[in-house]
Order: sequence, then structure tokens, then C-alpha cells
Amino acid sequence: ASESDLKHDAGDKGEYRHFMMKEIHEQPEALAATLEGRIVNGEIVTEAFGANSNDILKKVEAIQIVACGTSYNSAMASRYWFEEIAGIPCQVEIASEFRYRKSVVLPNSLLITLSQSGETADTLAALRMAKDLGFMSTLTICNVPGSSLVRESDLAYMMRAGVEIGVASTKAFTVQLAGLMLLILSIAKHRGVDPALIQEITQGLTELPKQIEKALEMEEAIKVLAEDFADKHHTLFLGRGSQYPIAMEGALKLKEISYIHAEAYAAGELKHGPLALIDDDMPVIVVAPNNDLLEKLKSNMEEVRARGGQLYVFADKNAGFESAEGVKVIELDHINNYLAPVLYTIPMQLLSYYVAIIKGTDVDQPRNLAKAVTVE
Amino acid sequence: ASESDLKHDAGDKGEYRHFMMKEIHEQPEALAATLEGRIVNGEIVTEAFGANSNDILKKVEAIQIVACGTSYNSAMASRYWFEEIAGIPCQVEIASEFRYRKSVVLPNSLLITLSQSGETADTLAALRMAKDLGFMSTLTICNVPGSSLVRESDLAYMMRAGVEIGVASTKAFTVQLAGLMLLILSIAKHRGVDPALIQEITQGLTELPKQIEKALEMEEAIKVLAEDFADKHHTLFLGRGSQYPIAMEGALKLKEISYIHAEAYAAGELKHGPLALIDDDMPVIVVAPNNDLLEKLKSNMEEVRARGGQLYVFADKNAGFESAEGVKVIELDHINNYLAPVLYTIPMQLLSYYVAIIKGTDVDQPRNLAKAVTVE
Repeated sequence: ASESDLKHDAGDKGEYRHFMMKEIHEQPEALAATLEGRIVNGEIVTEAFGANSNDILKKVEAIQIVACGTSYNSAMASRYWFEEIAGIPCQVEIASEFRYRKSVVLPNSLLITLSQSGETADTLAALRMAKDLGFMSTLTICNVPGSSLVRESDLAYMMRAGVEIGVASTKAFTVQLAGLMLLILSIAKHRGVDPALIQEITQGLTELPKQIEKALEMEEAIKVLAEDFADKHHTLFLGRGSQYPIAMEGALKLKEISYIHAEAYAAGELKHGPLALIDDDMPVIVVAPNNDLLEKLKSNMEEVRARGGQLYVFADKNAGFESAEGVKVIELDHINNYLAPVLYTIPMQLLSYYVAIIKGTDVDQPRNLAKAVTVE
Repeated sequence: ASESDLKHDAGDKGEYRHFMMKEIHEQPEALAATLEGRIVNGEIVTEAFGANSNDILKKVEAIQIVACGTSYNSAMASRYWFEEIAGIPCQVEIASEFRYRKSVVLPNSLLITLSQSGETADTLAALRMAKDLGFMSTLTICNVPGSSLVRESDLAYMMRAGVEIGVASTKAFTVQLAGLMLLILSIAKHRGVDPALIQEITQGLTELPKQIEKALEMEEAIKVLAEDFADKHHTLFLGRGSQYPIAMEGALKLKEISYIHAEAYAAGELKHGPLALIDDDMPVIVVAPNNDLLEKLKSNMEEVRARGGQLYVFADKNAGFESAEGVKVIELDHINNYLAPVLYTIPMQLLSYYVAIIKGTDVDQPRNLAKAVTVE
């Protein structure tokens, strides 16, 4: 059980008004904890996934991830990494869909389950079908030692994010992303990927806790920004590539705790429907670390602005974006491109929190939602 | 060019107030046209995909579909069919995402592009990458003869849906689904799938035009139902399995022409976020042909109803659902389970049309949207 213990008392909010804000601020510590002893001399310690993990990981030829909610969003981000970095095919599916359909399992597939609690009913049901479906092996990335997913998987990565109490998951999401990246780099090594790339990202991981800490300094600026959203009933989140799932997670957070109907779209889909919705009640948040996305969006954005839609762009401070009429640019420090999704999660979390505070909702226990969905 | 000509004059709305409604009502005719000469003596005529299609289809071991907007939704529905009926792995991706990321192509993969116009910029860009990415072959399902997708693909299935003028696609969607099913059955035959199953679905296809005609008789009932939505700003669409993409398409239609912020969720994800949103301004539409979905939703729905959320269930009349306080059941005739997604599309189209009429929006030319997205 020592795996999940951080030094603080989980039942204590400390200086914070809500568990969610405490957990947002614990992310540098949680990321350091998940990396501790798992990168040694610049090499990933694959025992983090289980004693015999190398035997399995070297044979894996395809990845299938099943998850729900926030964990599904981290899985979606990791799909871009699995295919681009490790060159291994990766499919991601909502657990409640996967378990009820007849899917085709590729040869030597690893089934990965993601769940903070390790007890998510649909995800657990999917895991229990793994052998019959023909999966070579199973691996879970989970925060609760001794949970059903951990007990019943061949391999397990313990997140060590510490207890998460806020219903809207925050630190579990960023720590899942870090765990997934460690796994991807381990598989990439077996597949003969350029060691320089692996080393570059490994180095980037070790710098994450500090970068997240720095990003948390955006808090005051985001608090001000949140005022723009307090009277809105809709928000559109746009992202591209591995930042599309970050837009999805940003929308989910805002939905969960502020009850604003937020929806995420892959930025390229804007013209295929959602553009019709935009008016002065629907601000648009763009996660655009570099400028290719914003360049492509510019013509659309003219239309957005003509209809009163306000645009908020979260971008790399080196990308050279400038705020203008109808466009607010919020700058983040430069970060390794592969790890940018982790960093850009932070302002989304802070924004949803402060919008909820202004709206006066029950941040830690949003209406109708439970922390772990242990029944269907 | 004769492939796309229906008997009517495409520029003429005839008895209808809008092209969209005309096109909704043309679906029995369009489905009959797409099937004509393509099922002979109960067998699928594989020349419909190109002269040498059998040589290619018998070698295919994996499917990758890329599409945008409505075509993406039909691709998503077909994914369930490809894997369940033909036992072939199928991945679906938004074209603007696919073209900009480094993905892994499985051996002997067929790249399928879906586009009504054949000129969708991102989809065309994806097709042009196909050879370099290592795809074995390419196939398009398209409504415009001589279009770029048709000219540049190895194989092409001409939809023969007739000219579609309404920006919100209707008949192109259901005809795409029929074309995809013909393809799936052709591949299934090469893969040794039980001929009885292939024959059952083939027979079901021939009955579709009549069943769609019957479903269009729901028009008056849906017109009344639409009044419930006229003052709403949000709607949630839920589906499971191959009806989840139908929920997605239902949400897209409502979004496009009525400017209601409609969003679709896989039904099992309800508890992982969207349940927090539900109140008396957010009705919930459930596409639930049989009762497993509704049984699972019942406990959630108690919460929905306690918060004032109204539930609309589209279901098989044999499934035994009954309307109750807060739950309106709309019955559809029984249909072959595999083809149910096509049928359940019809009431979604009618609903979005009549809501838009009440709201007074420009049905055929919704704000900010173009018929074919030929630029990025």
C-alpha cells in the first residue's frame, strides 16, 4: 500500500478551499513521485510495469487501450505518441463500447486499461474479456494498489499520484500521461527507435515537475480570465494532434464542475458543423502550442469574430502570437513538443476551477457524478 | 456522368419548401438507385467498386477510413459492421487529424475515403498520401462522378444519391451506409463468413427503400415533437454500438441547422461527465432499438428526470417500451439489427428539420457553413 502514499494527509485540504485545487497544485509532486526511481541514469526502469515486463513488452506488436471519462482522454493523447514515437499501432476505445461489440484483436496485442480507481465497472469488464478475445497480455495504469484492475492484469504501473478526492480528475490525468510516456519509451527501445529521440523525451519527463510548477503560476491570470466565462452557457475547445485530447479533457472539466456545455472538436472539423453554433454566448478556446493550427484557423476565426465569438488561444510564448480584437493569447513557456499536452492541461484545469467558483457550484462533488463509476 | 442523375431536376424543390426536406424524402429512391444492379439474384455485384475490385478486395486485411463531418459519422457506424460482420480490423479517423500525424499502417490495408462531393480538402490530402504511407490500395465512396476522389482512387463506388443541395447532408449519409454495407458483405464473402449471415443482410438491404419510406410517415409525429425543442439551447444524444454514430449524426444535424448545441455521447459515458449538465434545458434523446441500452440507463434516467430532464426514446415497437412521466417513446418498425442505424437516422433528420423550421433558421444554407469544404 506504500505505493500510493504521498506525505500529506489525503483527508486534509490544507491551505486550499477544495480538494480539486489542492490536487491541481499537487501535480509537480505527483509527477515527481511517479518518475522517482523509474528513470535512472537517463534510462527507464521497466520493472515499473512488473518484474517480467521486458519479456512481454519486447513481443508487443499492437496496442488496444480501453478507458472511460478522463482516462479515455489520456488514452487518446497517448495514441498519437504510440504511433509517432514507438511506431506501434494503437487503438483507443470507450470501455462501455468495447465490451459490448465484437472487435478484431490484432496479433500480439497488449490490452491496456486506464483507471484512477482501478474499479471502473466497464473497464474491468473489458479486462476480464481479454484472454477470450485473444490478447497476448494485459497492463493497467492505475492509482490504487490492490484494486481489481491491478490484481487482474498481467502488468501494472502504479501511478503514485496520491489519493484523489475531487470528483473531477486532475492529477490522475497528468500522471497517467507520464506513465503512458514511460511505457511508450520502453516499447520504443525494444523496437529500435532512435536512442536520441528516446533520450530527448526521457530528459523532458524529468523536467516536467518544474515546468508544471511554473505553469501553476498562471493561476492569477486564469482567475481573471474565468470571469469571461461565468455568464456563458457554451464553450468550444479546439485542438489538433495530441492536443486534441487535451481540448477534450478541458471541455470535460468545464462540463463536470461548472455545468457549462463545453464540447471539444478536432480543429479541422470546425467547418463541418460547429461553426454554425458560434455566437457571443459561445467562446472558443484553442490549444495551439505552435502556429500551424492558428494559421489554418485564421479564416474561420474571422467568421467567429464577426459573429461575436471570443477566441482564447493558449500558445507557446515563442510562437509569436499576439492578442488582438476578439483574440486573447495566453502564453506558456516553451516545452518539448511531445510533452506539451501535459503542460497545456494545467491552464484548462485552473480555468474550469475558477469558473466553477464564480458560478458557486459544488466543485469537489458535482451534481449527479460519483468519483468512481463502479456500476454500469 | 449518368451515374449521378436521378429523374428529377436537381435545381427544383418540387413540392417542398427546402432542398433538405426534398432530399430527406428522396431517400427511398436514392437507396433503390444505389442498390440497382448491385444485388443480382441475392448476390452482390462487386464490379460496383471497379472492374478489378475482386483482385484487391480478396487481399485486404485491414481497413482505414478517413472522412470529415457527416461522412465521418457513417464511417464510424461502418466500423462496427466491418469488425463484427467481416471480422476485419477497421480504424476510422477524422481526415484533418489523419493527414497531419504519423500513423502506423497495417499490412495489406485498404484506405477508404468517404465524401459526398469528392472534393473535401482534408480527405483528398489523405488520399494523396496513401501510396507513400504504404496502403495496398484505395477506395472511395462518393456521389460525384469525375470528382478528384473518384479520379485518384484505385476503386470507386458511385453513390447515385442524386445531387444534394442542402448543406446539411441527409440522403448522402444513408446511401453511404448502404454502399459501405455492400462493400463489407463483399469482403466478408472473401473471408469465408457464413453465407447465411451475408444473405440475411443482403436481403435486408433490398428491403431498405420500403422501410425508409414507411419511416418517413413519422413526419407528422416528429413535427409535433419538434415543438418541445424549439426553446431549448442544448440537447444530448445517446446511443450504443452502431447506433452511437447515429446519435452523433443526429446531434450534428441539430447543430448545423437549428443552432442548438447538441452533443452525442456513447451511452455508457453518461456517468463520466455529461450527467452533470442535465437540467430542464437539456432534453436527452436515446437511440435504443432494443432494450439492453434502456435497461442500463434506467438508474441514470431517474436522476435525469429528478432534475427536470426530458427523455425521448426512439425504439423498436417490439421492444415493449412505454411512455411514462418524463419519458416519451417513439416507436419504429422492426428492422434487421445490422441495418437499424440506417432506419433510425430518419427521425433524427426530420427532428432537426422541424426544429429549424420553428426557429426560423436558413435550413438549406446554415450560417457559416458551406456544402463542400474544399479548402482547409
